[in-house]
Amino acid sequence: MEQGTDIFDRHLRDSASRTEALLSQLLGSESLPQEIRRPDTLLQAMRHGVLNGGKRLRPFLVMESAALFGGNGDAAMRVGAALECLHCYSLVHDDLPAMDDDDLRRGKPTVHIAFDEATAILAGDSLLTLAFDVIAAPETEVSDRAKTELVLALARAAGLGGMAGGQALDLAAEKQTPDEAGIVTLQAMKTGALLRFACESGAIISGADMPDRQRLRQFGERIGRAFQLADDLLDLTADAATMGKATGKDAARGKGTLVAVRGQAWAEAELDRLVAEATELLTVYGPKAGMLIETARFVANRKN
Amino acid sequence: MEQGTDIFDRHLRDSASRTEALLSQLLGSESLPQEIRRPDTLLQAMRHGVLNGGKRLRPFLVMESAALFGGNGDAAMRVGAALECLHCYSLVHDDLPAMDDDDLRRGKPTVHIAFDEATAILAGDSLLTLAFDVIAAPETEVSDRAKTELVLALARAAGLGGMAGGQALDLAAEKQTPDEAGIVTLQAMKTGALLRFACESGAIISGADMPDRQRLRQFGERIGRAFQLADDLLDLTADAATMGKATGKDAARGKGTLVAVRGQAWAEAELDRLVAEATELLTVYGPKAGMLIETARFVANRKN
Repeated sequence: MEQGTDIFDRHLRDSASRTEALLSQLLGSESLPQEIRRPDTLLQAMRHGVLNGGKRLRPFLVMESAALFGGNGDAAMRVGAALECLHCYSLVHDDLPAMDDDDLRRGKPTVHIAFDEATAILAGDSLLTLAFDVIAAPETEVSDRAKTELVLALARAAGLGGMAGGQALDLAAEKQTPDEAGIVTLQAMKTGALLRFACESGAIISGADMPDRQRLRQFGERIGRAFQLADDLLDLTADAATMGKATGKDAARGKGTLVAVRGQAWAEAELDRLVAEATELLTVYGPKAGMLIETARFVANRKN
Repeated sequence: MEQGTDIFDRHLRDSASRTEALLSQLLGSESLPQEIRRPDTLLQAMRHGVLNGGKRLRPFLVMESAALFGGNGDAAMRVGAALECLHCYSLVHDDLPAMDDDDLRRGKPTVHIAFDEATAILAGDSLLTLAFDVIAAPETEVSDRAKTELVLALARAAGLGGMAGGQALDLAAEKQTPDEAGIVTLQAMKTGALLRFACESGAIISGADMPDRQRLRQFGERIGRAFQLADDLLDLTADAATMGKATGKDAARGKGTLVAVRGQAWAEAELDRLVAEATELLTVYGPKAGMLIETARFVANRKN
């Protein structure tokens, strides 16, 4: 009989290939209404930055959260793809020489290496812009009210007070290591905000009540913290071959992580605690929340 | 008695100072709901890139187009401010060393000079994101339907098939000069798309009919072409002190412009023709379109 984790893995893989197909279609060479022309090199750079066989965890969370409230699955997949475009823009820009200066991402040359710096900047800009295009497009069949809420929540998760601000704090942390509260804030912004949006957006798509939306936000917040803790543990213990990118970089840069401050044993206990909290938050929904709870376990225990 | 152009100049200046005040408020240090924290250095870099005493032509076009159809003036000012954030993001990124490598903008150090490259990249990203935030925010009092249309139209004007794609074509043009049709496409994308959106968005804000919206799009398209032709003429004839930035750069880079291909006399006649077309498009609205028609003349005749 298939084990729980096998079912989960297969489900995540199936979802990732459907997301990949949609992303490839959205990043096709056909012009959309109102567009003047899609320049080929820029389009190829965007595809390079997005179509890289990622796990597509964020779209998966959008789709599973929407499914919990009976939301439109196609619309959820489109919002998930939009979120993935936005996530990938952040990776393309973070990899730039002026930022983290990384040459490899998932074992492939980063966009500024495969193309050039100017093209990487513009590819990132265009992916960020495309995220809002895809949400607002007529093909995303949710109400205008839901679209407005999705645009607002995504912009706040991604901007100055969210992900981009978190990257600014991360760069500043290379010069002066923040204290524990500073690390928590930095991580909540840099990686937490988008994962929280992923979970909350499913509730918005489905027109769920505010208490449900709030619960999914809180669930997403736990997912974000678990994701970052697991990442910090992996940076400490995994090798570059498993990760498909350079490891041990946090320590080399003197970057503070909670693992560095509190130790590995604390981090592992904290991961268990976060999974327990995430599970508790969703017990009210009974067995149909099983896949989301399994996702929390997966995020906490991931090996790459 | 005050002359027509004096009235226009005063009106444009008044509008610019109201826009500037709103931009300063939007880029204030107070966190908005759902934001975690606004990192100060990043916020200051964004302010540096936006609060530079610009003419605020795009917001002016949004507000005047909205006024033509009786749209909500406060909402139009917010959409104009959002558009200005997006326009300024494009300037911050275009000035980067990997792009046009400019040290000065309106006589002040560009963002990557005043701060650093990483901060300039993130400030641009955050301004682009903020544009969508401001449109979708509850304080922008238009219908959710109008917000969805504004987000979609702005994303298409700004992205791969619009402004960002135009900048990619512009960088490619430094290596291989495009033919005349190529120059027209490049300019329609790089500078035309946002100006067209400025005019169209006023109609969207006001819930105008599709023929009205279409007419304002066409008007905005003429404004965009006139703006670029005037810019190319100025690059040829003005000095750096008047422009507050380096001039003669197009020729130095071997960039093709329509002025270079067709000559100065043709360009001046074409500007007259564009103003006449723009005027003709709006005659149906009678005297209340006077300010927009005056704007078309201003754009064609501007000296900096």
